[in-house]
Amino acid sequence: MFKKTLLAVSLAATSLSSASAFAVEQVDLLIKNATVLTMDQKKNVFEHGLVAVKDNKIVAVTDGSDLKEYEASQTIDADGDIVMPGLINTHTHVSMTVFRSMADDVPDRLHRYIFPLESKLVSRDMVRIGAQLGNVEMVKGGVTTYADMYYFEDEVAKTVDKIGMRAVLGETVIKFPVADAANADEGIQYAVNFIESYKDHPRITPAFAPHAPYTNTTETLKKITELSKKYDVPVLIHLAESERENQVIAERSGGKSPVEYMADIGALTPNLVGAHVINVSDSDIALLKQHDVGVAHNMSANIKSAKGVSPALKMFDDGLRIGLGTDGPMSGNTISTIDEFNQVAKVHKLVNKDRAAMPPVKVIEMATIGAARALHMEDKIGSLEPGKLADIIVVDTKAPNMVPVYNPYSALVYSAYATNVKHTIVDGKVLMQDRQLLTADEKAIRDEALKFADTVRKTVIESGEVVQ
Amino acid sequence: MFKKTLLAVSLAATSLSSASAFAVEQVDLLIKNATVLTMDQKKNVFEHGLVAVKDNKIVAVTDGSDLKEYEASQTIDADGDIVMPGLINTHTHVSMTVFRSMADDVPDRLHRYIFPLESKLVSRDMVRIGAQLGNVEMVKGGVTTYADMYYFEDEVAKTVDKIGMRAVLGETVIKFPVADAANADEGIQYAVNFIESYKDHPRITPAFAPHAPYTNTTETLKKITELSKKYDVPVLIHLAESERENQVIAERSGGKSPVEYMADIGALTPNLVGAHVINVSDSDIALLKQHDVGVAHNMSANIKSAKGVSPALKMFDDGLRIGLGTDGPMSGNTISTIDEFNQVAKVHKLVNKDRAAMPPVKVIEMATIGAARALHMEDKIGSLEPGKLADIIVVDTKAPNMVPVYNPYSALVYSAYATNVKHTIVDGKVLMQDRQLLTADEKAIRDEALKFADTVRKTVIESGEVVQ
Repeated sequence: MFKKTLLAVSLAATSLSSASAFAVEQVDLLIKNATVLTMDQKKNVFEHGLVAVKDNKIVAVTDGSDLKEYEASQTIDADGDIVMPGLINTHTHVSMTVFRSMADDVPDRLHRYIFPLESKLVSRDMVRIGAQLGNVEMVKGGVTTYADMYYFEDEVAKTVDKIGMRAVLGETVIKFPVADAANADEGIQYAVNFIESYKDHPRITPAFAPHAPYTNTTETLKKITELSKKYDVPVLIHLAESERENQVIAERSGGKSPVEYMADIGALTPNLVGAHVINVSDSDIALLKQHDVGVAHNMSANIKSAKGVSPALKMFDDGLRIGLGTDGPMSGNTISTIDEFNQVAKVHKLVNKDRAAMPPVKVIEMATIGAARALHMEDKIGSLEPGKLADIIVVDTKAPNMVPVYNPYSALVYSAYATNVKHTIVDGKVLMQDRQLLTADEKAIRDEALKFADTVRKTVIESGEVVQ
Repeated sequence: MFKKTLLAVSLAATSLSSASAFAVEQVDLLIKNATVLTMDQKKNVFEHGLVAVKDNKIVAVTDGSDLKEYEASQTIDADGDIVMPGLINTHTHVSMTVFRSMADDVPDRLHRYIFPLESKLVSRDMVRIGAQLGNVEMVKGGVTTYADMYYFEDEVAKTVDKIGMRAVLGETVIKFPVADAANADEGIQYAVNFIESYKDHPRITPAFAPHAPYTNTTETLKKITELSKKYDVPVLIHLAESERENQVIAERSGGKSPVEYMADIGALTPNLVGAHVINVSDSDIALLKQHDVGVAHNMSANIKSAKGVSPALKMFDDGLRIGLGTDGPMSGNTISTIDEFNQVAKVHKLVNKDRAAMPPVKVIEMATIGAARALHMEDKIGSLEPGKLADIIVVDTKAPNMVPVYNPYSALVYSAYATNVKHTIVDGKVLMQDRQLLTADEKAIRDEALKFADTVRKTVIESGEVVQ
């Protein structure tokens, strides 16, 4: 329940209580009566806790006993609901929402279906329309930060800026002609221009996104590595994802694995975030750790495409920087990290033949502070601690699927839907309140996406060019 | 959008059109402008279709070209949303909602945790309170029929009768003392009394529920088999679920598998519905088919407990009667069948190493007509066809996670949440309209469950008797 209080009224009410004994601190936003999952180093949980926000930062996270010490211009009474760090989606292609539910089961889909589809339909408009829709889905699902890899990433940036989310946006570089570049060098130039435009944005981190080791040359990968150091920006890449990649890289490198090859050419750096990382040996994992590489674990998409299960649990336990991602909406197919929880927990139990292998708290860690680590942003986001940026969500515990909550981590992992997220706050600003978006027109965005989908139907489906 | 029209007004409006050329049929409920997934034998899909209902039965399912031939006292304009058969949950323990999120990862949980917990806390009140909450969750998630195994099943029956759902309710028989019976014979008598009370109920099918082969004696299993023939009622059982079951049955039977043992004692009959059916060989599967046994496939619970993956896809392809179940809320942990879709599709792809192994249409078949077959109810429910009972759901396709829909089966399986179900209709009666329950007080039910959860906390958690 939201309450905007006039300052005078609040102060009066406080002066009627024993507040005169306290030093009252004026804050912008106060969340009280919350089951607070801090995800701090001790994994503190406060059953009747509070979170106080000033400007765009968290100033207090407590057990609630000091409630009277705060005066807020806006108060959320969580009424026992779960309050936790905003979810961080470490890997997606947000604009592909407009292609969701197309040809989900086509074998060798990326090369036989998606690349040809994109060569026909990717445009500035498509990128903007898809990103808008995906942003809506993510804010409504409690994602406050995401890492994206696509084309016309400056269009994605405009939508992120507008809705108020936080994002790491990687402009794709790939060796064949694509919608915004005729070749890899043009792609690099596009990325450099984008990085220069956005490098000072308070919520957007621009990045390079070489598609994958096998879809780029060694020269391109080296060039991007150098430029990423020069600009001090992340490099997002699909890594150790497919059999085809293994083959191409083995041929190119005299039998090396993709991770070994990347280490060899100097492309494993702390700027790198590898998505998927399925086909890795123990020594590959050691290399990733040694070079402080981030890893995006996309369970749902990986098993949908029958690519296998990443040894994500081992990487997590070995102390690598690893967090959950959803992959794009043609792959996942939803892009709210919360939809991964169930599958991440259960499939790791299945493959480890041990029901205790993946306790819910690890899953939540991989969705919050772990994901922040993967993006090298753990000093700013990923936990509720004083001094961190105020990216916070409130999850409804009164929906029938969530009742009762004996263990909040279990309830989140095994029961929660993305639609159980009630309020989403980014950078101290409420983007969703009681499931209503405050910074985007959901209906207009949906209608524009549906209109674009009609174009897709006419262009590629009704023409018979693709098989559904 | 719902519209209740006065008959006079509707007729007048129709007579202004060209309706005089048609024989106008008066129906009780008309759903129009729908993407109708019939799940009939030809898997007909109507893009702008209609479904007409008279009393508790479907009287027409068409492509919508005959819309003007129907006059309805209640009309739902689906506005392109998906209209499909109500989901059938073939296996749950609905009352266990009140224990949800407790001790999810305890090894050997059934014997070390759940049985002791139940011996302390199962009561008529607990069963009623849990069933009410579970019914709310299922109606809101589009489940119109479920099969239940628990104690005090007459209490569950009262809640099902009241909310208006359809159910197969199995009274548990087990060899040790439980809340409603001191031994198996008392359990059988309880079940017989329950069956005699409910055998003529229009929506409730009473049943026997011997817990499992290994938790009952051969004598009990034989007795129940005979009684199920006498009363012509289903027998719900956990079958081929665990290693412990394999061991106990092998010792008892001189090395037989649970399915072989059940065949041997004459307990495999068309009345039987086996839940889980994980540890089965090809010859076990052939036995199940030969005896026309129904199978409940509970992917989510089975992988959460690391029990393994049932060869459900092979059973489906071999023509067995098989449908999806959720298992109970301590196991699944949600009990809306829709939550299984994603995991059923993806995990079968994973274990078959083939992204085309489990197309979405098969998953939807296993949730509807396949599940009806598993319960031997396919002549009455499971598809939208004239003459069948009117169990129908409408799924919102405008929620951001569902946009756009190029393939409705894909959208349902890979994108839909239980909360995307908009309207739920059972036996021709609207139980949920625009996500609001019409036949149950959701808040009162939730509050009673939350109060009971406080008792649970005091009784078993705060006392230190169980570890969270």
